[in-house]
Parts: sequence; structure tokens; C-alpha cells
Amino acid sequence: LVPFNIFLVKPDKVKDTNTTVKSSSSPKFLGNLLVIPMDGSHWVGIKALAQELGRRGHRVTVVIPEHNLRMGPGKYYDTIFYPVPYDKEHVINLLSSHKDVLEKSVQPFMEKIKARFTQIGKTSNFLHTTAESLLFNTSLIHHLAEQFDAVLTDPMVPTGSFIARKLGVPVINLLRGIPCFMDLKAAGCPAPPSYVPRFFTGLTDKMNFKERTINTLVKMCIKYSCTICKLNLIRLSFYRIDFTLDSPRPLMPNTILVGGINCKLRNPLPEDLVTWISGEHGFVVFTLGSMLSELPEYITSTFLEAFRQIPQKVIWRYTGKVPGKIPENVKMMKWVPQNDLLAHPGVRAFITHAGSHGAFEGLCHAVPMLMVPVNAEQPDNAQRIASRGAGVVLDITSITTESLLQGLNEVINNPRYKENIRQLSALHNDRPMDPLDLSVYWTEYVMQHKGAKHLKAAVHDLNWFQYYCLDIVALLATVLLVTVTLIFKCLKLCFRKLGRKKKQE
Amino acid sequence: LVPFNIFLVKPDKVKDTNTTVKSSSSPKFLGNLLVIPMDGSHWVGIKALAQELGRRGHRVTVVIPEHNLRMGPGKYYDTIFYPVPYDKEHVINLLSSHKDVLEKSVQPFMEKIKARFTQIGKTSNFLHTTAESLLFNTSLIHHLAEQFDAVLTDPMVPTGSFIARKLGVPVINLLRGIPCFMDLKAAGCPAPPSYVPRFFTGLTDKMNFKERTINTLVKMCIKYSCTICKLNLIRLSFYRIDFTLDSPRPLMPNTILVGGINCKLRNPLPEDLVTWISGEHGFVVFTLGSMLSELPEYITSTFLEAFRQIPQKVIWRYTGKVPGKIPENVKMMKWVPQNDLLAHPGVRAFITHAGSHGAFEGLCHAVPMLMVPVNAEQPDNAQRIASRGAGVVLDITSITTESLLQGLNEVINNPRYKENIRQLSALHNDRPMDPLDLSVYWTEYVMQHKGAKHLKAAVHDLNWFQYYCLDIVALLATVLLVTVTLIFKCLKLCFRKLGRKKKQE
Repeated sequence: LVPFNIFLVKPDKVKDTNTTVKSSSSPKFLGNLLVIPMDGSHWVGIKALAQELGRRGHRVTVVIPEHNLRMGPGKYYDTIFYPVPYDKEHVINLLSSHKDVLEKSVQPFMEKIKARFTQIGKTSNFLHTTAESLLFNTSLIHHLAEQFDAVLTDPMVPTGSFIARKLGVPVINLLRGIPCFMDLKAAGCPAPPSYVPRFFTGLTDKMNFKERTINTLVKMCIKYSCTICKLNLIRLSFYRIDFTLDSPRPLMPNTILVGGINCKLRNPLPEDLVTWISGEHGFVVFTLGSMLSELPEYITSTFLEAFRQIPQKVIWRYTGKVPGKIPENVKMMKWVPQNDLLAHPGVRAFITHAGSHGAFEGLCHAVPMLMVPVNAEQPDNAQRIASRGAGVVLDITSITTESLLQGLNEVINNPRYKENIRQLSALHNDRPMDPLDLSVYWTEYVMQHKGAKHLKAAVHDLNWFQYYCLDIVALLATVLLVTVTLIFKCLKLCFRKLGRKKKQE
Repeated sequence: LVPFNIFLVKPDKVKDTNTTVKSSSSPKFLGNLLVIPMDGSHWVGIKALAQELGRRGHRVTVVIPEHNLRMGPGKYYDTIFYPVPYDKEHVINLLSSHKDVLEKSVQPFMEKIKARFTQIGKTSNFLHTTAESLLFNTSLIHHLAEQFDAVLTDPMVPTGSFIARKLGVPVINLLRGIPCFMDLKAAGCPAPPSYVPRFFTGLTDKMNFKERTINTLVKMCIKYSCTICKLNLIRLSFYRIDFTLDSPRPLMPNTILVGGINCKLRNPLPEDLVTWISGEHGFVVFTLGSMLSELPEYITSTFLEAFRQIPQKVIWRYTGKVPGKIPENVKMMKWVPQNDLLAHPGVRAFITHAGSHGAFEGLCHAVPMLMVPVNAEQPDNAQRIASRGAGVVLDITSITTESLLQGLNEVINNPRYKENIRQLSALHNDRPMDPLDLSVYWTEYVMQHKGAKHLKAAVHDLNWFQYYCLDIVALLATVLLVTVTLIFKCLKLCFRKLGRKKKQE
């Protein structure tokens, strides 16, 4: 059944201890779901949903490239690997380019820009190659052309949407948002630049005149630089947003909010780690996300020097070179159970790049954050948490031992931060339904009802001049013009006749 | 404690058999809720929510005028009656004006218009007097100035919002929508006329050019004829809408959809009624809502003549005069347990005015509908159900025995209607949470967290030219103008100098 150039991993071969905290009732309908995920932190939410659907009895098939960073088989879903023209080494090298950009950050402006563009070019090429390897793998596509009820995908790259179109089944997206607001544009969702901040601007929804000008200019610029791949089969979008963190804005009916989808995915901490973190001063968790587990030596030294001067223990996910000796209160690990550590009562602060998963985990467990955003939407997330008084933002490229110590002292010892994040956390966690259960519910809904067509606004049937009623404005303007002209002509005629009469008198 | 001019009914004095089908877990937080409801069908949803909140242990106080149509004490809430300068007779007379309008419908156009305007004037006066009786009852307002956590109200009349403002507590609205889209305007929610149909137009979201022109003109007209009472304490709005019935449109984050909130409020049918409706041909339910329980005699005769010719039994809520003999298969009742009858497996059709409560009950229980809309948003509801092939619309003023028999034959014997309403019903009933439970949840949320400020979009901080970025457009236009002028002036200067030079040569 399975073609030669792919290989399949059945769930019974997999040991996976990840379990959800909440168990649920049996599903109403058993469907067949195809999952086309993205690598890196994007994998976290998709995997959680795929696992949970499989656990509830649906047949879930995840399709991933043979060499990748974090993706792999799970206990409750089938995995199909497809061949790619690169190896694992290449993927890891790609990651180290993030560290390169940081290293270049002390160099002249043009060097920095060059490094950034090189990195974007490499990433773009990589995504392109991966997508082609799947889309042009005719035997795999042929193999997939059986009875799937829906495709779950990350729309950052439209591979999943293309495949769904080919198979003729509805698409379910899981995303945080796409640069340029392409997702909102494709959904026909209004997002006025006067109060909806654009990505990468670091703005919140309360903007002064200058900030609104910047936001509007950004909107105008991206209008001409981004093209939309508008596929019509999208039925539902799960958005990893939550208004305790993000700015409230209009939403379309087929939008389901699942910010914090991974917060309840917990495992018990290893015994030795529990022993190590115990102590009266508590501990600090330090991670910079899946893309950045190494740092330039000068930044690493700064962090180590600061950690030496605090009483808290520090668990740091770090795989790079270490200059000098590691302080006794610091434990460096290749991988840390971040969510489980943040859920521990002894945690005092979370040093994070403010990626959305980390930000939501900190929010979920009410941990004050010291944020060193690096790229993507991290500065936006950091700015929002800081604007709510729940954390402090530092620029990682100009960080000093003093600024770091001051920041740590603030978030650990100033009770204002803990109180603010506690309040935000209470609002965030008070939801009618857990986001993972909610996304399972709506995925089942789309599979069972073959879509959710009635949730799709009629905006998709209109072109832009119909949407803005320009054709009607044109009609009304014409009617008005004709009326005014006629009245004017009539009056002119009347006056002329009147004038003649007067003359005749 | 209670002032002289009001009287209070404690719940233990009340016998009320209304129970929800689903029982729920104990509440997380016990709050104090003040309820300012509206009379008529508007009372249905508010009462359901007040009852359920009281049943879960919250202290709920409902404030209503001493003389009214349907409102009254309940098993799980306190009731405060306030004096009004009219009696029960007046309220009942007001209702009969709806019948008058129908009677006048066969008269000349000007008479019809006059009757309609008289009715609107009377209703408006009545609402005004009722609102004043509450707002200027200083002893009652003083009595209410204790620790309430929130006010639940129907925003059709802003009495509840005024009181909430006076008490300084957040407002929760329960509504289907306000004519002129004032609710959406007040919430800053975009509603492009190109695909969001206006009230009373009978349009759906799929409009041709002519229909879009009408919709846009209606939007432009109401813009200048409706004034908004924009009170800033609104925290949440429960909308009795559902996209299986209504057109999908953008929503604001503090909007909770609870269409069909009353569907699960069921009681067992009386034994004698169960016996009467049993039979191989099933039965038809016929009600025209709380406002219309009488009909002009000529319409009543038409209905009776048609009913005489069908094999189904007919249960008709009717309190008016009956011309001639009532057929054996027709049972007229002063009040019918509409929702319980519609839930009975023997029901074949529902003859309804297509008020929103009736429409949702028919949808919830998948009963094909024969619709005779009379006023308000009833023609809109009827049009939407008809456009989905789940019912037939007839004009009640020009109804004949033949058209009625044909309509009944269609909805009862053509399986297409049953199949369509069954599919719609499956979509409508498939929701992560029952709408009543959902509204209880969010009411508790607002009471516990003292509002839901973070769900409110920043659009409320902007005036209209900021919202549309007109100030920024002005700035950019000025910059552009100055730049162009400067370039032009420079060029002119250069050319002049060049010209002079040439002349000198």
C-alpha cells in the first residue's frame, strides 16, 4: 500500500509519555484526518492536537520530511516520512544562522542587514525545497488520495492547503498569524490600522498619533509587498491568540481562539531535577526557543556573570560553547521540560525570547518574565507583556551584567510583577473550555459535517469594488449628477423663457 | 429595608416547574446580579438565564413594573415590583393594537400607515413611561445602591445601562440586535453593507446589485435617523444569533453567541394533551408569539377552513373571537407549551410568525415551518429560513384557504423541507457548549472579574476621523503636497537659471 519512496511509522511502535491532564468523553464521530505540519515551535500545537484526536479514536496521519528538527512519530497517530534532498546536518546548520545574526549584531549596520538577508534567503530556500519535495512526490500524493475528511495544517507555508485542494477536502488552520496580516486579508476580516497593531511594529492597541502613522504606513507598505494565496476550502482557523496577551480586534465567525493550547500538556518532572531545583530561593527557567540554543560567547559570559550574583538556581537550555566555569547555581541542559518547570511552585522568573508558546506558558502558570526578544513576533509579544506590567524587556545584543541583574531583581523581588501576571493568568485560564478540547471539538465538527460552510462570511463572493460599495457609489453619484444637471437645465430654460417674456414686456 | 413604594417577592414563595435538562456543577464564585428585563418575548431568554444563575447559587434580583404582560417571580430569584402609572388593562389594550394593524391591512394605504404610526406612538409612550417610573423612583434606586457585581439587561431600552452606570457596575446585554444596527455601531463592530444585510430589509448575505443598493441606501438612511446611547460600561453582549439562521459577519471579542438559549428549557407535556395529539397523521403547532393571540375574523375563518381539510391535528394558541364552529381536529388554547410540543416526535409542521424565539425552537427541534411574519425582524427570519429550503413564507394579510393548504402540503408532505431543517438543526445543535450554560459561564466571569475589560477593542478610544485614519491621510497628503511643491519650485528655479544662462550665451 505504501509506495517505495516514503516510509510509514505506525503508532504502536512509539513510546510517548505525553498525556493531557484532562481526560474526555468518547468522540461522537470517528474521522480520518491528514496533518501537514510545520517544523520548530510551530510543531508544538499541531502535535498536541494530532495526539489528542488520535487518543480519542480518530485516525490521524501526519506527513513530515524524513530529516527535520523536532517533528516525529507519536503514540496516537500514523507518521509518513517523505524523502528530501538535504540531510539533518543541513537543518541544524540552518538553525545556527540565528546565532550568526546575533554575532553580527555588534558589527556595522550593513553587515547586520547582510547577515539578516542571508538568513532569510536560506530559510526561504529551505521551505521551498521542503514544499516541493512533498508536492511533487506523485506516488505519495496518489497514496494520500483516499478518504480523508479534512486536512489540519499550519498556513505559514501553503503546502497543506494545496494538498487539501487536490484531495477536495476542507482545511483547518492552526496559526498565530501570518506576517502582513495575509490570513486576515484572505478571511476578509476587517483590521483597521487605527487600533489593530501590525506585526513586527512592537505597537499595542493604544497608539498615539505618531504610532498610528507608523502602523498605517506599515499597512500601506505591506499591501504592495505581500501576495495572498487565497484558497477557498478553508473552513476553520484556530488562532493561538488570547486577548489577555493580544489586542482585541474584530474576528470572523470561523475563527476559534486557542491561545495557550499547550499549557495543560504536562508530565511529572524527573526526580533528580526536582531535588536540584528545591531550595528556599526558588529557581529561574531560561530558554530561547527551538531556534536558538547557542549564543555568542560574549553574551553567554554576561548571563553567567549575572547568575553568579543571584541566590536563585538557574536552569538554562543551552547547547553552545561555555566560556570559563559554570556557576554552581546554574544547570545547563540540552533540552528542558519548560512547561513542567514553569508549572512548579518554586519558579521565580522566566527568562525567555518571548516566542508565543513560551509567552503563553509563562502566562498560564503566572510566572513573571524577563524578556530578550530576538526576531519574528517576539518583540511584539514582549512589548505586550511589558505593557501589562508582567515583565521586563531587555535588548539581548546590548545586554550587560548590571542591566540583567537589575531586570532579574525587578521581576523576582518587586511583587508588582507577580501580582500583575497573576491577575492576567486568572483571566487567561478562566475559559468555558480548555483550548485543546475546543480545537478537538471543532476538528471533529469539520470532519463530521464535511466543513463549516455556514460560518464563512459572504465577503468571499465579492471583489474589492463590490466590498467597498464603489459600484453603488458610482451609481448614486451618476443619479445625483444627472438629477442636478436636469434641474439646472430646467431652471436655465425657465429663466431664459422668463427673461424673454420680460424683454417682450 | 425595602422602601414603601415597591414590593419584593422572595423565591421561596414561588412555585415554578421550569427546569433545565442539563444539570451542572457547582459555581466557582457566588455573585450578586441585578436584572432589568424587557417584557414580551424578550423576557424568555433573560428569565432562563436569571433562573439558571439563581439555581446555581448566585443571588439574582429581577426588577420589573407591577403591571406587565409576561414577567413575574421565579423559583430561584428575588423579584422587586415598582409602581407604574398604568394598569394591566392598558398593557393588554396595547397588545390588541397589533391586531388592529392587521385589520387595517385591507383598508387604503393611508389608513394602514396611520394605524402603524399610531401603534408605534403608543408603544413608544408606554416604554418611555415604564423607564421613567423606574429611573425616577429614587427610593428604589437608593435601595439598589448596594453591592451588585453586574447588571444583566436587554438593551432595546437603555434603562438597565443607566442604572448600571449609576451603580458603577459592568453591564451584560442579552439581545438579538437593535434596529439601525445601533448595537454594532456602539460596539465599533464593522458591518460592511456589501454583505451584511440590514434589519427589516428581508435580504440575505447573498445580494445582487439591486439588493446591495437597497441595503446600502438603508444603511445611509438610518445613519442619520438613529442616535446611539453609547454607554461605556458594557462588558459583554450575548447575541441570540446563530449562523445556521443568520448571516455570518465580523464579531467583536466581547460578543458571545447564544442563539437558541431557550431550546433546552423543557417540561413534560400534560397527559391529556399527549393523548389528544397522538394519531397516525401527527399534529401541527400554530402560534403567533406573545404579541398576537387574536386575529381579525376573516383571517381566522381562512385558517379554520384550511385546517378542516387536513388530516393532522392542530394546536392553536388563540384568544380571539371564533367565527362559526371549530373543526374537530383543531384545539384552541390560551397558552401552549410551544417548545415542549415542538420537541414531540409527532409534530409535522410549525405555523409561526417567525419571531426569533419560535424560529430557534423550530430549528432546534427540526420542524419544517409555514411562516406568516407580521412585523419587527420576523420577515427577515422567515426569509432566511425559506432561503435555506426549510420553510415556506406566506403573507398573512392576503392569505387564502388555497395558498394555506398548498403551503401546509409542501412543508408536511414534501420530504425536502424536513431534510433541510434536519441538516440545519444538526449544525445548530452541534456546539461545544449549550448556549444557556455558556451565558451562565460568562455572567459568572463578569461578576467575578469585575468586568471583562481586556475583551474590549481600543476602537472606543478613537473618534471617527482617527478610526478612519483621516488625520494620518491629511498628514501624508500635506507631506506629499509640500514635497511636490518644493520639487516643482526647485525645478522651476533651475530651469529659469538655465534659461538665463542660455540667454546670456
